[in-house]
Amino acid sequence: MELKKIGNVKYINGGVCAAKGFRANGVQCGLTHEGAIPTKGKNDLALIVSDTMCSAAAVYTTNKVKGAPILVTKDHISDGKAQAVIVNSVNANTCNPDGVQKAEKMCQLAASELGLDEKDVIVASTGVIGQVLPIEPIAAGMKGLAEGLTYDGNPRAVQAIMTTDTMPKEVAVEFELGGKTCRLGGMLKGSGMIHPNMATTLTFLTTDAAISPEMLQQALSRVVKVTLNRVSVDGDTSTNDMVCVMASGAAGNAEVNSDGADYEVFENALYNVMLNLARMMARDGEGATKLIECAVSGAPDDKTAETVAKSVITSSLFKTMIFGEDANAGRIYCAVGYAEGDFDISKVDIDIASNAGNIAVGRQGCLVKFDENKAKNVLSEEVIQVIINMGSGSGSAVCWGCDLTYDYVKINGDYRS
Amino acid sequence: MELKKIGNVKYINGGVCAAKGFRANGVQCGLTHEGAIPTKGKNDLALIVSDTMCSAAAVYTTNKVKGAPILVTKDHISDGKAQAVIVNSVNANTCNPDGVQKAEKMCQLAASELGLDEKDVIVASTGVIGQVLPIEPIAAGMKGLAEGLTYDGNPRAVQAIMTTDTMPKEVAVEFELGGKTCRLGGMLKGSGMIHPNMATTLTFLTTDAAISPEMLQQALSRVVKVTLNRVSVDGDTSTNDMVCVMASGAAGNAEVNSDGADYEVFENALYNVMLNLARMMARDGEGATKLIECAVSGAPDDKTAETVAKSVITSSLFKTMIFGEDANAGRIYCAVGYAEGDFDISKVDIDIASNAGNIAVGRQGCLVKFDENKAKNVLSEEVIQVIINMGSGSGSAVCWGCDLTYDYVKINGDYRS
Repeated sequence: MELKKIGNVKYINGGVCAAKGFRANGVQCGLTHEGAIPTKGKNDLALIVSDTMCSAAAVYTTNKVKGAPILVTKDHISDGKAQAVIVNSVNANTCNPDGVQKAEKMCQLAASELGLDEKDVIVASTGVIGQVLPIEPIAAGMKGLAEGLTYDGNPRAVQAIMTTDTMPKEVAVEFELGGKTCRLGGMLKGSGMIHPNMATTLTFLTTDAAISPEMLQQALSRVVKVTLNRVSVDGDTSTNDMVCVMASGAAGNAEVNSDGADYEVFENALYNVMLNLARMMARDGEGATKLIECAVSGAPDDKTAETVAKSVITSSLFKTMIFGEDANAGRIYCAVGYAEGDFDISKVDIDIASNAGNIAVGRQGCLVKFDENKAKNVLSEEVIQVIINMGSGSGSAVCWGCDLTYDYVKINGDYRS
Repeated sequence: MELKKIGNVKYINGGVCAAKGFRANGVQCGLTHEGAIPTKGKNDLALIVSDTMCSAAAVYTTNKVKGAPILVTKDHISDGKAQAVIVNSVNANTCNPDGVQKAEKMCQLAASELGLDEKDVIVASTGVIGQVLPIEPIAAGMKGLAEGLTYDGNPRAVQAIMTTDTMPKEVAVEFELGGKTCRLGGMLKGSGMIHPNMATTLTFLTTDAAISPEMLQQALSRVVKVTLNRVSVDGDTSTNDMVCVMASGAAGNAEVNSDGADYEVFENALYNVMLNLARMMARDGEGATKLIECAVSGAPDDKTAETVAKSVITSSLFKTMIFGEDANAGRIYCAVGYAEGDFDISKVDIDIASNAGNIAVGRQGCLVKFDENKAKNVLSEEVIQVIINMGSGSGSAVCWGCDLTYDYVKINGDYRS
């Protein structure tokens, strides 16, 4: 799947280690439990550390059930500062009686090894809900985890946050701020309990750009809305989702501390990274074989466009139809029709497109005849676009989802996750 | 699956023909088209006729895309009267240019055979959206359909409305009004595009009780809210859903034309029939192997209870977990947590129950230990109850859903429907 590029950025390698002065590592400390998704020797504990103190910002799940790590991280970055991230997979440390103490303990263990204040450590967990988190393997693994930190350790770290993900997800870009070269990169995990209206999934971002905590939070909150919050894999909003960013300033640019040209360059860099991470997450949704991109235009307003696009990408009937490679616009009209909002369905046009071409499947609220063979070709691609023109205004939005497959049922019917 | 019985009613056979003076029939007129769900020689056109004029009421889908039959039926019963129902499967007569003319034509054809005014005919269609409805097979089949009407023809009629349904769904009850024995029965089709907040699916009800159109509409609207509108199979709100009821008065009771004891008896009879049709629909959701009943109590209010129950039964992760027979309360807490409403998750208790017993899986927002073998036994049953006590008030609601299985994906990925 190709990376999308918006504006003037350059893609580079390195994920969370792309930015100057960030080290990472991942180890297998042994958190597996009976009935868990098999970890097959995979890493389960990761650390990301900046050489210097960073501005920090985060966005969290809106679920009323909040994982203990969320509560601890919120407290730790309330001063807008952080220097490290400790994160485990396999166990979500949520809906259990001692989660907060355990999350605090993870920060203490990491801080102690790194010579930091525990309040400057961000903590996150993903995995099964409701199990007591065994702290012993984490304590035992921390020394090796810290000792193994390297400026190119991102592949080990990204492996440690994967659960049902089938591929690691990393993106990094290079951009210029005030004549200085800056870098921003991140890693993300999917791939179930993923639905818009929250931070959706675990995402860790690092940059060597200098930016104030306030502007960093503004950029993150704005970009989350049009990237991660426009993805749905299964309609389930997780209890542990978090996206956080640390900005070290090691690039030496004049600190971005207000709106303006520099801020816009920074926000666009962040947008490029998160846009592509979001698309990767949708493509790697549990059991998915295809990325679905639903672009709505001509809506009465952006909000309605987003509601309609989300209605389409979350429709089970639509998702199974894409899996079956069937261009049945009836199911798309149906999903548009039950979206909330005030619009005239008889003005709505629908196209389906991919690298293999474009087919008009609906015009003015009615299905139109098309070449079934061409449709099969279009739908046989990995990235499918559904293009909806509502004919009622200038609102627009793009949302991302994936097909619903046998493997989604298998993954979630067979394993406790 | 046993019928649920609320209050003083007696279950009888006969479906839409249980009430005195109602005849029905179903035939295969030949509406199959390329790519359609195979009809395997199944009936595709049904007629239900009362010997005398009836009070009539209906509730329709809230989807902004409305099937042409919905528009025509709304017009035809605007006077509160109807005497017959004509309905086809295979083709939904929706999102096509000439749907309304075709739906009118179906009424004319039926009225002409029956010697009725076309305005006294209710019309409904279910099947693939967006295809032109071929009227020729319907016209050719109408004479035989009308000639074959019998007072025990309900099995032929119910077969004609099935699409992906695996079993016919009929319920009828007998009850007393003012010393007169009355009957009320109905038939329903599922089993995809089914989600609360609308009439959900096609349902046809007949009764020989005498009741005014106004009170009939009131009873139907009230009962739909707590039966059909509390079912979700796949979260998709169909374009063609309709539930309609005809009341002939042939039982000879004094017409129910106001609230009071008689009205309550009638409403309870309707509730029993629709409750059981709703449960049958959920049980026979596309690909389903289990009926899930989620009962929420202790909510701040009934609305919140309903929102929470619907959030649980529509969660894909929960639905696949029930298919996998895994008692993972983490996914239930997760779905409760992202439901809208103002409540304290740390007061929420969760049990899972079935005919094989009851297990406490969550207390005060945390998962509790339970006997995994007992849990397997409980979850191996066909009807699974999830019992949620929110500990925050006296609101309650029950919603019904089904598990998400390989066969759901197969049915919707393989066929155009």
